[in-house]
Amino acid sequence: MKTLLQVDFPFDGPFGQEMTDAMKELAESIAEEPGLIWKVWTENPATKEAGGIYLFEDSDSADKYLDMHTARLKSFGVPVVNAKVFQVNEALTKIDHGPV
Amino acid sequence: MKTLLQVDFPFDGPFGQEMTDAMKELAESIAEEPGLIWKVWTENPATKEAGGIYLFEDSDSADKYLDMHTARLKSFGVPVVNAKVFQVNEALTKIDHGPV
Repeated sequence: MKTLLQVDFPFDGPFGQEMTDAMKELAESIAEEPGLIWKVWTENPATKEAGGIYLFEDSDSADKYLDMHTARLKSFGVPVVNAKVFQVNEALTKIDHGPV
Repeated sequence: MKTLLQVDFPFDGPFGQEMTDAMKELAESIAEEPGLIWKVWTENPATKEAGGIYLFEDSDSADKYLDMHTARLKSFGVPVVNAKVFQVNEALTKIDHGPV
């Protein structure tokens, strides 16, 4: 069953174009993660937060990615990682043009 | 600038097909909200949570929707609504096949 992973964390930057330049290789590696369908990269310079919304093929892929990514973020100095895993209600999502 | 709204809240159900049946009309109304591009409906019976990930055309549309939706959820008896608004990093998202 398709699984959505919601991640956010405190982040001091870089944001915007500098974030793009700094994280391009990371994004390329994420595109190769097993079970990943897509990731939307999120950032908020005002609240000093960043994160991502991920769609995975199944909950097992999402859980494994989250374990790896949490450890990676902590290695980058991120103090706390907020994460939630959800099932997608595909019928309601379809009504609202959601990309699943 | 495209804006992502991340919402989750404690939820006792209904989940799955019963959620679909109960919320179909709400989903149809959400599809008509100004500035909405898409919504992914999220649910987790194990943690008793539900929510949604929304993409809006701009932050103003997202802020207005969040105000309205928070009041609506509270009228449904939802005790607390967790919400975060983010800008989308479109270049990194494109690398990871994100639908923005």
